[in-house]
Parts: sequence; C-alpha cells; structure tokens
Amino acid sequence: MTTASPAAPVPDVVDLIRAKRDGGILPGADIEWLISAYTAGQIADEQMSALLMAIVFRGLDSDELQAWTAAMIASGERLDLSAVPAPTVDKHSTGGVGDKVSLILAPLVASCGAAVPQLSGRGLGHTGGTLDKLEAIPGWRASLDNAEIVRVLREVGCVICAAGAGLAPADRRLYALRDVTGTVESIPLIASSIMSKKIAEGTAALVLDVKVGSGAFMPDLGSARKLAATMVELGEAAGVRTSALLTRMDEPLGRAAGNAVEVTESVATLRGEGPADLVEVTLALAREMLTLAGVRADPAAALADGRALAAYRDMIKAQGGDPDAELARAPHTMAGPARRTR
Amino acid sequence: MTTASPAAPVPDVVDLIRAKRDGGILPGADIEWLISAYTAGQIADEQMSALLMAIVFRGLDSDELQAWTAAMIASGERLDLSAVPAPTVDKHSTGGVGDKVSLILAPLVASCGAAVPQLSGRGLGHTGGTLDKLEAIPGWRASLDNAEIVRVLREVGCVICAAGAGLAPADRRLYALRDVTGTVESIPLIASSIMSKKIAEGTAALVLDVKVGSGAFMPDLGSARKLAATMVELGEAAGVRTSALLTRMDEPLGRAAGNAVEVTESVATLRGEGPADLVEVTLALAREMLTLAGVRADPAAALADGRALAAYRDMIKAQGGDPDAELARAPHTMAGPARRTR
Repeated sequence: MTTASPAAPVPDVVDLIRAKRDGGILPGADIEWLISAYTAGQIADEQMSALLMAIVFRGLDSDELQAWTAAMIASGERLDLSAVPAPTVDKHSTGGVGDKVSLILAPLVASCGAAVPQLSGRGLGHTGGTLDKLEAIPGWRASLDNAEIVRVLREVGCVICAAGAGLAPADRRLYALRDVTGTVESIPLIASSIMSKKIAEGTAALVLDVKVGSGAFMPDLGSARKLAATMVELGEAAGVRTSALLTRMDEPLGRAAGNAVEVTESVATLRGEGPADLVEVTLALAREMLTLAGVRADPAAALADGRALAAYRDMIKAQGGDPDAELARAPHTMAGPARRTR
Repeated sequence: MTTASPAAPVPDVVDLIRAKRDGGILPGADIEWLISAYTAGQIADEQMSALLMAIVFRGLDSDELQAWTAAMIASGERLDLSAVPAPTVDKHSTGGVGDKVSLILAPLVASCGAAVPQLSGRGLGHTGGTLDKLEAIPGWRASLDNAEIVRVLREVGCVICAAGAGLAPADRRLYALRDVTGTVESIPLIASSIMSKKIAEGTAALVLDVKVGSGAFMPDLGSARKLAATMVELGEAAGVRTSALLTRMDEPLGRAAGNAVEVTESVATLRGEGPADLVEVTLALAREMLTLAGVRADPAAALADGRALAAYRDMIKAQGGDPDAELARAPHTMAGPARRTR
C-alpha cells in the first residue's frame, strides 16, 4: 500500500464520491485517506454514506478492496499472538438465526490441539451474537484485555470474547453508519468489514462459514459464493491462510433458538448428545480448521470422549463463568424455527 | 397527493432507502413524510444523502417526482401574486458561464406588458448568479419581502430578487446536502429543485431555458432534453403553463464575463447595442414568454425604442439602486471565455 507523502494535497472528498458514483476506480492512497480521515472525524457522515451507497451500486475492484481493508486494519492495532505455542486458527460465520456452531467449535478444535482466538462482534441485524448467548452464564466476562486473551489461549487453547475497540475501529464507525443508511448489503463492504476484524485479531488461519438460504445473511447461492471468494482473497492477501465453506441455513440448526437454550444445546452437543445436523456442520468446520492449522486429529473422537466438553468448561472458568450454574433465561423462549424480525 | 392519517405508523427511513436502492417505487405518502421529516430535522443527513445517492442511480418515476416536488413546495409558502394585474410569466435558466440573459429579459418582457417575478437563487456551482451580478450596482437590494415584491411588480412590471427562505425550504436544505455529497447530477433531483422554487414563487407561466454544451450544467443534448421534458411535466402538473427552449452554450454569450462587466453589457443590450448572439437568444426567450403569457407584442421594438431600458432603470430604482452609478468592479476581470473551475 502506498502512503501519501506529507506534501501531497488532501483529496477532495466530493471528487472521490463523484468518481466512484461514475464508475471510476479510486487510487489506494485516496482510499487510505478516506478511511483514516473518516475515522478521525474529518469526513462528515453524510459524505461517507453517499460514498457507501455509490459502492453498493458500483462495487470495489480487487485492488480497491484490498486498500479499503488494509486501511481499516491500519486504523487500529493488530493483535500479536506469537506467545501462543499452538497454531492459531479461527472461524467466522456470516451468521443466521440460531447459529450456535461457534460455541461448540472453539473448545472442540482447541481440544484437538490448535488454538482458537474467537473474537466476536455483538449481534448483527436480526441474528443473536455468540457473546449474547454466553452472557446467559453467570459471571462469564466477554471483555478481556490483550494480555488476558493470550493467557487464556495459552492455558485453555481457546477464547471467545468481545473484539476490543482497538481492533479495526474504522469498521466500528462504518458499520454503525451502514446500519442506518441502507448500505449493509454490499459484498465488498461485508467482506472488508469481516476480514479487517479477523485479520486484526492476529489468527494465522481462518475458516469462513458462509451461510446461504432464507434464514441467512446471503439469501442466494451466487452471492454467498461471491462473498466467500472475496473474503478468501482478502485473507490470503494479508498473509492469513483462509478457506471457506458454504452451509445451508433455511432452518435454524438444531432445535433451540434463544440465548440460554442455545447454550444448553451446545453443551449437550459437546457431551456428544447433539442433534445430527448441528454435529455434522460442526465436525465439517472443525476438520477444515484443523487441516488449515496443520493439526492431524479426529474431532468426532474429542466429542465422544469428553475432551471437547472439558475444554469448554475450562474456557468458561478462565473467563470468570461458572459452567455448572443455572442459566439466566430470557422472559420469552421460542421453540421451533425462530421468526425473522426483518 | 395522499396525506398520512394521524394514526398511520411512521415509516422506517432505512426501509425506504433500501426500497429505492433496490429499484422500488416509493409511495407518495412516504415521500411526503421523507421531505417533511427531513426539513424538520427528524431524518439524519447521512440517511438522506444515502437516499439521494440511491436516487442518482435509480431515478424517480413520474408519480414519485410529482410527490417529491409537491412535498418541497408544501415545506414552505406559495407566493400569492393575484394582486398583480398583468399576466405573470417567469424564465428560469439552468445556467452556465456568463449567462446574462436574465438581467435583460425581465425588463424587456415587462416593457411589453407581462409581469415578471424573477426570484433567483445564489450562484450554483461554478456559475455566477444573476443576483451577484446586480449587486455590483450601489444601493441595489436583492432581499425584498413579499409585499415589496408585489409592489414592485405592480409599479414596474418586473422584479429580480432573492428567493426568500420561506419558499421551498426543503430544497434549501437538500441542495446544501447534495452539494457536499456528490448527488447534484441527477435529472429528477435537479428538476424538482428548480421547479419547487419556481412553482412556489407564484408565477402563472414559466419558460425554461435549458443550456446545453461544455460551459453548461447539462453537457449533452440527450440529458438536456430529458431535463427539459421532466421540468415541463412538473410545471403543467402544478398548474403552471410551462415550456422549454434548449440553447447552446459552448462559449459564454456576448463578450463579457464578470459581474460588473456583465451588467454593463446587459445595459448596452437593453439600449439596442447588444452583441448579436445575446440579442438573438434574449428575443427568442422574450417571445416565448409573451406567447405563454398571452401578450401580443414585439420585444425587438421595445429594445429599439428605449422601453426595455426604461423598465430596467425603473426596476433598479424600485429596489434601491442607482442605475447611473459607477459599478463596483471585481479585482480581477476576465476578457474572453471564462474558465470552468470544476
């Protein structure tokens, strides 16, 4: 990525909006300036939202998207996980109703010998986030500082916690803006948002679980494939070994939807008593993660012999939670497929 | 236009942005709400700018555009010119470098028996506005209240003044937003901006002078034709007899560019000593205005016999100016074709 020299004139944001609107390609240095100036509050929200809408229509080409993602990473810190001895590998799911795979996958893969730094965002749109689900456990803390993250990874082999404000702060501002301006649904904007945070979290490898279907973020197979390919290219370009699986999500996986009941079902799955569809998807992702991390192990055995459950309990305890406590239940629990609210 | 009943739920602005982004047609009642809520500060600038950019790409159909324009008019007052005995007719030019036709046309048409309420905006983009030009005259006031406008129209037959803040205030806010968000260049947005102000000024008839060419707002003939047709349809729908002429503007009309020198050249033209190209365009517009107003008269005679110049002098005096005073000159005057700054 090129850096503007101190003597370079400041770009005119209106010129850049017009250029993208008219189908032009923005130079990397201008994209770098746009993201850093916006994060610093030097570009007005109404200008950035107009640019985002122009990107919804015109897209970003491969070079633009790499520059955009790199600028979002550069807006904050990139976590240093070099003190973790095991090979690091993370999973990101584009989400959907009732996605409880993350809760199972991190301890399962950790119990097989890789380290899983699962830094998650809060709920995106209508889908409940992994953190919201784990917060049903009394005492469990989602917010850890960097030293704690490294400590839990070294001791337990997995951590599920909130992505700190220091990781890709530009994405935090941009996502809040996209959410209120009808500019969420854009493959380059979705891909750069996800990948900037995942690359910044410092993982060496990443498996993407792109959901497709009526309950998912990407309704059709073509868009899901395009999103997957775009994210893999961004990860590889940033030195993160990345692969993607497309998984169907017309109905919620498993049977339970709702934070506390999903945790309960996840624990049952870790004990080897999970519903077949959930177990199948989870094992497929676990195998992909272990392969990418270079670890030869059978995750099905780890579910069957209690290692996965033990890793889960250790992780909950390492983050202040009581794995044996009664879970806080939401006032309304839903049985059967969850309804989309949007 | 339908009006939302008090019990109707408030629309979700993000839903409306997404609908337009995806090529949908917005219902009239939702457009009415969008414009009034934005003018009242209830919709954030970043949301309106995203919607405007979606409109740049998707356009507005005929019904949407009429609702949009009507809502902008309804955001303020519509001037009552019923106390003016002569038939009212105005001209609007889409502008361009060195457009000095307006300064000549209003007194010329008034001297032929129609009344011209020329309420103008300030400079748009790179073109100097008519008001800026007249302010080179010592004492001349651009700001008149509604009673003064009617008085000058009754006494002189023409007035050139600033459009007050009460006329289409929604357009004032929207235009300022479009200017900084790269959303100026949209035929429906340009047409609704111009026509909302012209309809609100209360004129019974309107001639549109749509410039086409490299020095003009619309660079190609196709866009200029489309803009002209769109504005005529909006005028007629609002009960204003409207017609449009397309005029070439690759080079500035006449010889002078710059406020004081343009006024001087306009006065020479009103004396019958104008450059041929400027006289030709002005007479064509004057004839169109008089026809639309139902007045049979020969504007060429009014230029030749001093009536047009007398009307100009009366108008300047009625607005506090001294038509015989030395004009304030800009520090830099340009001879020859003016350069575009954008």
